[in-house]
Amino acid sequence: MSVVNVRLAGTGGQGLILAGLILAEAAARSHGKNVVQTNSYGPEARGGASKSDVIISDEVIYNPKPETIDVLLVLSQAACDKYCGELSPGGAVVFDSSGVVPPPGLKAMGADVTGIAVRELSNEIVANVVALGVLAGAFGLVSAEAVESAVLARVPAKAKDLNLKAVRRGIEEGRRIRSEMEKK
Amino acid sequence: MSVVNVRLAGTGGQGLILAGLILAEAAARSHGKNVVQTNSYGPEARGGASKSDVIISDEVIYNPKPETIDVLLVLSQAACDKYCGELSPGGAVVFDSSGVVPPPGLKAMGADVTGIAVRELSNEIVANVVALGVLAGAFGLVSAEAVESAVLARVPAKAKDLNLKAVRRGIEEGRRIRSEMEKK
Repeated sequence: MSVVNVRLAGTGGQGLILAGLILAEAAARSHGKNVVQTNSYGPEARGGASKSDVIISDEVIYNPKPETIDVLLVLSQAACDKYCGELSPGGAVVFDSSGVVPPPGLKAMGADVTGIAVRELSNEIVANVVALGVLAGAFGLVSAEAVESAVLARVPAKAKDLNLKAVRRGIEEGRRIRSEMEKK
Repeated sequence: MSVVNVRLAGTGGQGLILAGLILAEAAARSHGKNVVQTNSYGPEARGGASKSDVIISDEVIYNPKPETIDVLLVLSQAACDKYCGELSPGGAVVFDSSGVVPPPGLKAMGADVTGIAVRELSNEIVANVVALGVLAGAFGLVSAEAVESAVLARVPAKAKDLNLKAVRRGIEEGRRIRSEMEKK
């Protein structure tokens, strides 16, 4: 694919803007891609759905607003309800299997994002980094090495171990959901 | 003004993407504005001019790509040469007086961004936070309280003091350049 439009969506406070930024940095710095990354704030960000869009391309990007979404990650039901309709034909939605139910008829993959953060890592705050790993593992948007190094570049020193665990478990979970999808 | 288009531009590594993110967060969280914040990565980000755009509006924002720039901050000559032509009529450019010379005929204000970071704070890495303070102080895009609290929310605990100094000196410098501009 020469262009991939990715949207990370959930409620404000889930850290998806930082996750979008890290994905963009990984794609640009490690893979030499052109990337435009857009964050939207406003009424949406205060309790409703909030979103971070990342366009990853081999070509120059003239329009920063993605027309359709190829890969959608949703960590809240509101975000799922709001954005699933913008998926491109063939696009895929990854939903948090802890609390989101996608509409029927989509290429949908449930990933245990919040569960891994809360139950395995005892820290809900790294759900965004788990999610980032899931996207890398499931779609190969960026390599494992690229996403790990981009995460480490953006987190404080004392949080590096936890975040590295989070991104690695996310990558594993991403690979698992991809192989499940391929079996279908 | 109901919509302000802001661009922060310089070379990769100057931290302007983080500065754009903090400006966006301050405007959205403290002032209830709608904000779209766009980062561009790619060949530009590796040595040439890189940019972070922030649209701050009282209304819903439909087009994430600013047509013209109302407030342009440039920390490199390359960024100045590249983006000064995109200023709106009446738009203003703030340039780093340490090393940037703007073209004639513009509403241009020199701020000692790098000088404050390097000579007063002994840390070039906070030039981005000084610049953010300058924008707040010169244009009132966000209040001093809003930008200070947004900076503190995004920096690691051990760097809070330095960054608070940086943003406050930036605000002072911003007020100084505004009052100079008003005298002209």
